Amino acid sequence: MKRHLLFLAPVFFVLSVVNVKADDPLPSWNDSRAKQEIIAFVTKVTDPNSPDFVSQPERIATFDNDGCLWSEKPVYFQLLFAIDRVKTLAVDHPEWKTQEPFASVLKDDLKAVAASGEKGLMQLIAATHAGMTIEQFSTTVGDWLESTKHPTTGKRFNEMVYQPMLELLEYLRDNGFKTFIVSGGGIEFMRPWAENTYGIPPEQVVGSSLKMKYEVRDGVPVLVKLPEVDLIDDKVGKPVGIQSHIGRRPIFAAGNSDGDFQMLEWTTSGQGARFGLVVHHTDAQREWAYDRDSAVGKLDRALDAAPERGWHVIDMKNDWAKIYP
Amino acid sequence: MKRHLLFLAPVFFVLSVVNVKADDPLPSWNDSRAKQEIIAFVTKVTDPNSPDFVSQPERIATFDNDGCLWSEKPVYFQLLFAIDRVKTLAVDHPEWKTQEPFASVLKDDLKAVAASGEKGLMQLIAATHAGMTIEQFSTTVGDWLESTKHPTTGKRFNEMVYQPMLELLEYLRDNGFKTFIVSGGGIEFMRPWAENTYGIPPEQVVGSSLKMKYEVRDGVPVLVKLPEVDLIDDKVGKPVGIQSHIGRRPIFAAGNSDGDFQMLEWTTSGQGARFGLVVHHTDAQREWAYDRDSAVGKLDRALDAAPERGWHVIDMKNDWAKIYP
Repeated sequence: MKRHLLFLAPVFFVLSVVNVKADDPLPSWNDSRAKQEIIAFVTKVTDPNSPDFVSQPERIATFDNDGCLWSEKPVYFQLLFAIDRVKTLAVDHPEWKTQEPFASVLKDDLKAVAASGEKGLMQLIAATHAGMTIEQFSTTVGDWLESTKHPTTGKRFNEMVYQPMLELLEYLRDNGFKTFIVSGGGIEFMRPWAENTYGIPPEQVVGSSLKMKYEVRDGVPVLVKLPEVDLIDDKVGKPVGIQSHIGRRPIFAAGNSDGDFQMLEWTTSGQGARFGLVVHHTDAQREWAYDRDSAVGKLDRALDAAPERGWHVIDMKNDWAKIYP
Repeated sequence: MKRHLLFLAPVFFVLSVVNVKADDPLPSWNDSRAKQEIIAFVTKVTDPNSPDFVSQPERIATFDNDGCLWSEKPVYFQLLFAIDRVKTLAVDHPEWKTQEPFASVLKDDLKAVAASGEKGLMQLIAATHAGMTIEQFSTTVGDWLESTKHPTTGKRFNEMVYQPMLELLEYLRDNGFKTFIVSGGGIEFMRPWAENTYGIPPEQVVGSSLKMKYEVRDGVPVLVKLPEVDLIDDKVGKPVGIQSHIGRRPIFAAGNSDGDFQMLEWTTSGQGARFGLVVHHTDAQREWAYDRDSAVGKLDRALDAAPERGWHVIDMKNDWAKIYP
């Protein structure tokens, strides 16, 4: 009998581990209202007997990236990448010394660069990415992530992802959701690492993009990135990017800034059960605290709109037991 | 004992049905070289012990639609849809009586309409789709498919899909492939029915597209289709559409016309095992026979290139035991 029980022990152990996961799919979330609301939503849309049941193919969840899945301070990480590229390429571009936003980049004036906004960012991106093939660009991004540390935390950038959001992505996928990134950041900047970091494959990454050209160079077909904007996947561009790439309206959307307003609005104004989530950066100790007055990740209109629209505001400081993995 | 066997009979029945499927995943394909080559390819890329093994996430297969998954004669079915829309909307557009390609449409001069080419098609599409929301457009397409029959076969258009290709799509998915449509046809024209007909969800449909605008009309957010081309997903546009939507190079591509040349080239010039498939319309009895001189689905350059590039040409008449389901 005793031997019998010993044989069963590993089974019980496995069962209890599974149970822990099933009991708490979001261990890095404090047991606050936000967590309970997420679980209640997922439970009702996946229960075939619930009036709010949603068939599996319609379970589309979209996540902003900067400030929602990973940090975005002191400036968007992609901007830091572009800055490093400008410095590398500056030897061949003497004119950049007097030309904005390049001049500010070379003077390490991050504030001036950030103030140049989305437009300045796209100029930097066009200048530093144009003429490269997508393979060359992907390699450059991978090498940079591998070799570069964040200026204040000293972590690699893809270590500065939010553990609670990683758990949320997995929890949704475990419940039949397809998870997408829908970011103002560059689509080809995110793709090389999104699969390993977030479990989100390249075909489920939506982002700002440059136009591309297909050509055969010395017998070798290549796709070349052109210095011309295709889509700015921010604000009113987000629902457009969602429709273009996904072709269905999400039932769950997560963001953290006014750039996500229209994605949240588009998502939560559909029929049936919907969930809008806003990450509010309130933790100056473990991460950063900012909202209405921040040049990066400004959260103002969406914060005001959240209560009347039923969007769930996550208080990072109080709702998250852990920030980074 | 006898009773025991009777109980087992249904199990054996189920097993033997499963075996038939496992033995012949492509029952509507004659046992020709083409079929054997497809099976040999799928076998080697899915066998972990094969030097040609491809990990599951990289198993991307792309299919043209017109003339590859469904028929395209006498003209692209989407053109027939646009023609019906022009006739419906003509009461509000007296100027169309003298303005091409609308004048030819109203005179039922299909040849002149077809001769206006991709550009004419896009003009018709812009004129008949602009200002509609994506929901309105989706409903219009669904209603049309439901109510309209093909002019010569009398079948519904989505009954004119190729049974052998349906089996191929399923065979690939059963082997861990993700299947995509990559078509010169309109992305929003295919999405409403691609999931039911092909098992391909909206997020795996790539096609030509119009620009869209997000706006809030009387408090209701809508996405409106604009009369401005976003992408023509044909020829050099196909690898661009593939990269934009999928972000990886396919390892399997199927087409039937010169419009698929660059998709086949891009796919089969990647490293490792690749498969390029060209459907050659050779069956005037059961479907249509055409290639080099056809205004629709012209197959000339790709037919010449196939032998040297190792693309597998499907002889519809001899390789397919069945055409439509």
